[in-house]
This record gives sequence, C-alpha cells and structure tokens, in this order.
Amino acid sequence: MSTPLPRLALTIGDCAGIGPELALRAMSSPEVSTVCRLLVYGNLTLMRRVAEVTGLRLPPDLAVIHYGQWPSERLPGTGPVLIDTPFAEALTLRPGEVKPVCGARAFEWISMAVRDIRASIADALVTAPINKAALNGAGVAFPGHTEMLADLTGSTEPPCMAFYAPDMFVSLATIHEPLSKVPGLLETSALQRVITLTAAACAQMSGSRPRVGVLALNPHAGENGLFGSEERDVIIPAISAARKAGVDAAGPLVPDTAFTWLFSGRPKPYDAYVAMYHDQGLIPFKMKAFDTGVNVTLGLPVIRTSPDHGTAFDLAWRGKASPGSLFSAIKLAVRLVKERKKSS
Amino acid sequence: MSTPLPRLALTIGDCAGIGPELALRAMSSPEVSTVCRLLVYGNLTLMRRVAEVTGLRLPPDLAVIHYGQWPSERLPGTGPVLIDTPFAEALTLRPGEVKPVCGARAFEWISMAVRDIRASIADALVTAPINKAALNGAGVAFPGHTEMLADLTGSTEPPCMAFYAPDMFVSLATIHEPLSKVPGLLETSALQRVITLTAAACAQMSGSRPRVGVLALNPHAGENGLFGSEERDVIIPAISAARKAGVDAAGPLVPDTAFTWLFSGRPKPYDAYVAMYHDQGLIPFKMKAFDTGVNVTLGLPVIRTSPDHGTAFDLAWRGKASPGSLFSAIKLAVRLVKERKKSS
Repeated sequence: MSTPLPRLALTIGDCAGIGPELALRAMSSPEVSTVCRLLVYGNLTLMRRVAEVTGLRLPPDLAVIHYGQWPSERLPGTGPVLIDTPFAEALTLRPGEVKPVCGARAFEWISMAVRDIRASIADALVTAPINKAALNGAGVAFPGHTEMLADLTGSTEPPCMAFYAPDMFVSLATIHEPLSKVPGLLETSALQRVITLTAAACAQMSGSRPRVGVLALNPHAGENGLFGSEERDVIIPAISAARKAGVDAAGPLVPDTAFTWLFSGRPKPYDAYVAMYHDQGLIPFKMKAFDTGVNVTLGLPVIRTSPDHGTAFDLAWRGKASPGSLFSAIKLAVRLVKERKKSS
Repeated sequence: MSTPLPRLALTIGDCAGIGPELALRAMSSPEVSTVCRLLVYGNLTLMRRVAEVTGLRLPPDLAVIHYGQWPSERLPGTGPVLIDTPFAEALTLRPGEVKPVCGARAFEWISMAVRDIRASIADALVTAPINKAALNGAGVAFPGHTEMLADLTGSTEPPCMAFYAPDMFVSLATIHEPLSKVPGLLETSALQRVITLTAAACAQMSGSRPRVGVLALNPHAGENGLFGSEERDVIIPAISAARKAGVDAAGPLVPDTAFTWLFSGRPKPYDAYVAMYHDQGLIPFKMKAFDTGVNVTLGLPVIRTSPDHGTAFDLAWRGKASPGSLFSAIKLAVRLVKERKKSS
C-alpha cells in the first residue's frame, strides 16, 4: 500500500480577489493532485460563480462537504474536498470590491483550517491572499497572515516571515514596521532565534547544513561604527550566539553587495539570508522571484506557506491570474510535511 | 579644424590601491584617448613603479609636467599629461597598506584637480578610489569624495550622490548615514531638490524629459500610514512640489516591487529613481551593474564621476583590476561635458 498523500488546507482568501480562481486552478491541476490532497476552505456558490465567469471548471472528482458535516471522519473519494461554509452574500458580491463580509469569511476559513491542522485533519496550511481593509472592516485587526497565525496558534514567540525561491531563501528580522522603528526593534536574542529558525528551515529544504548570511543594518555594514552601531551592539552578538549554538552563520554582510551574485551566474555564497528589514530582503528577492516566490512562516506550530503576491483586485475573476506562485507554495508545503515526517 | 577633445582631470586616488594601475590603463587606451585628453594628477616615480610590477606601460606619448611648471599655459603634445607632484615616499610605499601619506597625497591631487577645473584648465573630474582611514590619518575628515568635493567647491547646498549604468540611473536622498537617522533626515525641500537634480542629470544623459520614480521610505509605501508617515509628511509633498516645478515625478513607489522590471525584460517604467537611503538604491543598482556602474555627483559646480568600486587593496599593483567602471566613468564625464557645452 502506498503512503497517503499529504493533506493540504487551502484557504481561498479574500473572495473579491484572485484567490478563488487560483484555488480552482489548483483543484484541477495534476501538478497538484499528484503531490497532495487539497482541502479547500471556501464556499460552493462562490466557486461556481467564479468558475462560470472565468471559464474555469470545478473538477469532476470534487467532493463537497457542507459545514454542518465537517470535520468528517473520513474524506469522501480521492480528489479535492471543498469545505462549503455558509455565505449568503456569495450570490451577489462582485470582484475587486473591499467588503467586510469577505474579510469575515477569509478570517473564518483561516481559523477553521488552523483548527483542523491542529486536530491532525490536515498536515499544512496554504493561504491565498487576504485584504487588510476588508479584514479591518470585519473587526479583524492583524497586519497580515503571519501575525494572525501567531495569534490563532497561540504562539508565545513571534513567527518569522521568510521567502523561498529555488535560488534564494531569505527571512526577515522585522516585518511590517515603519523604517524608523526597525533599529530599535532589533534585539540580540530575538535575532539569534530568527537566524536559528532560518537555518533549520533551510536545512529541511536543502537537506544539508546551511550557511546563513546575516545582513548588516547600516550602509557599508556600519563602516566600523561610523554609520551606526547596531552591527556591534546587536547583530554581531546574535551571530556569535547562533554560531555557538551550532549554526553556520556569518556576517554582518555589507547589504549593497550581498546579492550581486544573484544574476551573475556566480555560485551563491550563502544558502539563506537574514535581512534586518522588509525591503532589504524583499527588494532583491522580488527581483529574482517576482510572482513566483513563496512566503513561508517560520516558528509556528503549523507548516504554512502562501504565494508571494496580493489579492490583485484589478485582475480578479478574469481567469488571467498566474497560479505559479500558489503551485510553488503548495509544493513547498508538501516538501516541508514530508521532511517533518522523516525527522519525527 | 576639429573641436579639441574635452580635458578630463583624473586623480589616481589612494596609491596603495588599484587607482594607479587603472590610471595607467586609461592613459594607454584608445577607447579613452579618442574621446578626451587626460590630465592625470599623481606622481611619476609611483606610476613607473606600478607600471613595472604590473607589466603595464607608461604611454609613449605621455607628457610629464612637474609640479613647479604647473599649471601650464599650453599642454605639450597631444597625448595624456601627468602632473607630477612631490612624493618622496613613492619610492618605498607598498600596495595594500593604509598610509596617512597616501591619504594626504590623494587629498592634494583632488584639491589641485578641483582648482584647475574651476580655472577652466580641465572640463571635468574623474576620481579613482580613496581610502578613508588613510585620509583620516592625514587629518582629512570626510566620509567620502562627495562630501569632500562639496567642501572644496564651496557648495552651500549638499551634493547628491547618484549612480549611472546604461539600464539604470538612481540617486540617493541620504548617503552615508546610520539607518536610524535616515527618517529624521528626510525633508521636503531637500528632497524636492534631489528629485529636480536627478531629472536634470537624466535629461542631460538621455536627451528627453525623464520620468522620475521616487521611492517610498517604508514597506508597502507606508500602507496608508500604518507602517510610517514619511510618505505623507515628506515624500508626497516633495513629489508634488517637483511636479509643480515641471518635473515628471511619480511615487512614492512601493520599494520591493520598484525594481522587479530590471531583469525581467520588461520596459523600464521610469528613466531615473530617487532612493531614500543608501542600500535601497544600491542593492538593486549593484545587482544590475556590479563593478561597471558609475558614481556621479549632482549639484556640484563641477562635473564629477568615478568608478563604482573601492580601492581593492587586496588586488592592488597586480594589474588584475578591471578598468571597466573607470572607463565608463570617463565616458560619462565626456558626455556630460558635451551636453553642458551644447546647452550653454
């Protein structure tokens, strides 16, 4: 008997965006169905409407389980499963509009998915994009999935946002913060944790002991204290502590030359990078992997990945959105589930 | 009769670095001699030593003018000219060593070159790299050429550091500053000036009215004030003021997607970019033009360019340093001289 495929919980995100059509593509793709079984958290009426206007189809082997019958002891059939939750407005809502009700549903689906993963009904979470204004309108006040998932899983330590592409893995020491707050938020033990989480995740993905390059905060890596002291006060101590704990970490790297290898054909000097702030990591990452990268959350009790793009309201319900990043997110989640099973 | 070639003042920088050998290559290159006449500020003994150990040659048509005979009413010959200043230590100094005397000479050569440009003996300045520690050892306390040149030219307003490559032009609103100081240093009228200088320089280079993209400071361009207020308080007003003054400026651009076109084959959305801080502009610039970019200083009364690399002490006096960036700097200076002559 073959091992059953990993079960991936896929939340369709804000349904006025491109999430539903990407989910339709994932449900019908052999690229996906050969590596995992999808549990899609959404609404049948909505998926039918989006299928109709985009010319996409609901897969013939789709099993629909209504909310009242979920969680089900045994999944019906062998294809994807749609968990169909009540959503009266699904009949009338339109693409590209910020609606609190869409935010409320998006949050509900994520909450259900997290609960089901913790109950071992699903193995990992893949999230389609959400809209912050819609969430806020529904009274859900998180700046993004990462912070929401930390709360839903009761994590006591902050999760770490990381980005994966075949050529590059980068994690962020700070995420959605004004740049003026970044220097004050850097702290040695928290940074050491980010370095360690990054090394562990990278080891799972690459299989070997990764070399982690830790970026400096300041230009020229502070030029010996002339352009800032965070390298000396926080970053170097965090690197030293991580090295003592067995991580092959190096730095602080001069930021403006750390990524010059990316398009040069030269071998990569580090398997993973830790950036001090959002754009320091994401400017080079998105240059390399725009619309194909995967966002992965480290430090959560659940495995979670997501595509590296937003709701794209301007493109929604037209069937034109590329599912590449979502498919990459699904495949990475499958890999992480398998690696976790190996090591457990 | 043909128009005489522009005269470029080339300072050889810190002579324990790669500056002297790059100057030797420039003096002998038809690529250079067909577009300009070089006035090289340095020392003959030193150049002979570097030529000997690297296997490079002093060009046969080199005219040497000793310090006492300079400035000369009429330049001898038609080839490059070496202005040979006293430098007793030139006989004994070694490559790769930080020496205050090298810093003192480097500063002297730059001072002479600036003086000669202001006296219309030369048309523009191209500088080989200097070493800050050597300069500081000689009591010259500037963080770099840009600040030194502002002082030597008596500029009342700060110059603007910009970087040029065939595919990309980016200027920096702040330069050598700790990241923690950047938000506080951004100021509307100074930023408007940077935008205007950038547009003017880009217009000189491209000949048409440039579109200038101004980056945000914060992630997601501040996400409507949620991740910082500098966009609303400083950047948007500066863009508006620049637009009122006739500049085709746009922004604030979301930083992490502003440069995704660079390697994508897509057309560039802006002819020039204004970055809020050093690494925001230089991470993408150096990914695109590592070791081939040109540093150009805007807002000075003299035209000045330089290669986009350092002294490379570890490589010095071996004849292995690539002169590509210096040659690009020379050609850009020549172009800027010609454009200035056209418009005057």
